[in-house]
Amino acid sequence: MSLSLNPIGIMRTPHRDIEGMPIQPPGAGEFEGTLHLRPELAEGLRDLDGFSHVHLIYLLHKVEGYELTVKPFLDDAEHGIFATRSPSRPAPIGLSVLEVLQVRGNTVRLGRVDMLDRTPVLDIKPYVPDFDVWPADRIGWFAGKSGNADSVRADGRFRESGRRVKRSA
Amino acid sequence: MSLSLNPIGIMRTPHRDIEGMPIQPPGAGEFEGTLHLRPELAEGLRDLDGFSHVHLIYLLHKVEGYELTVKPFLDDAEHGIFATRSPSRPAPIGLSVLEVLQVRGNTVRLGRVDMLDRTPVLDIKPYVPDFDVWPADRIGWFAGKSGNADSVRADGRFRESGRRVKRSA
Repeated sequence: MSLSLNPIGIMRTPHRDIEGMPIQPPGAGEFEGTLHLRPELAEGLRDLDGFSHVHLIYLLHKVEGYELTVKPFLDDAEHGIFATRSPSRPAPIGLSVLEVLQVRGNTVRLGRVDMLDRTPVLDIKPYVPDFDVWPADRIGWFAGKSGNADSVRADGRFRESGRRVKRSA
Repeated sequence: MSLSLNPIGIMRTPHRDIEGMPIQPPGAGEFEGTLHLRPELAEGLRDLDGFSHVHLIYLLHKVEGYELTVKPFLDDAEHGIFATRSPSRPAPIGLSVLEVLQVRGNTVRLGRVDMLDRTPVLDIKPYVPDFDVWPADRIGWFAGKSGNADSVRADGRFRESGRRVKRSA
């Protein structure tokens, strides 16, 4: 079973290459980008300017194939792909909480962008602490490491396709 | 442009019908469900049991068509679909933060499930407060209302297809 989705638009960001990119929004403080929605969807943005933060759900469009275990940017050990935020996932979907800077026409200017330029976007949802903030008291192998995401940068490891499983359409 | 994604598995939950369902995880405290991963992906779950919470990204598979403005469950006024968490979205993707109860083989038992039985799942990611918790100081029309999500239940409004835009594949 395979399902078909139409992106709602694309992100324009300053990140033209995976290498050197921030790996998560905490390391992307200085980067702004713009979601360009398909023009016919512009009305769907009404009242989004009332929110300070959004979830952006997008396609990791430059990652080919996937791996079931990976050595993530923040650790030296292998972990199951679903226990990491690494991009080479079986369904290559990214998720970031971003700051809303301005909504205008069919565009949304966003702060802390950590995705590649021309990333296809699947959804934008308001970030609502009552739904989205939970007291996560166990963070597995990220313990003592997730704070480093504000300085660690991406390298090309997830671009190599050596031992990857090819994604079937 | 349309893109093709393979679900990684399906969710089994106690919710057989949209009407009466919790609308967000805060109202789903008593409901448990199980993600059944495609068996060949089981190795990808390694170390996920170290996390208390995950993001689940899934397809809103029973919603046909979409609307650009909606009257959401928690309000009496119309808002742009992207300023709501309502299901009739142009790319029908759902996002919930759930509790990890048990990881075993190719299955993950999850708490606070708020999605329909047999929902196709696209991704499961560890919830990491350093990446996912942000001081959202403006929550638009949800102000004074998002707390009601622990008691408000869904009705059939997003099942009616009257004035919907048909989704093109």
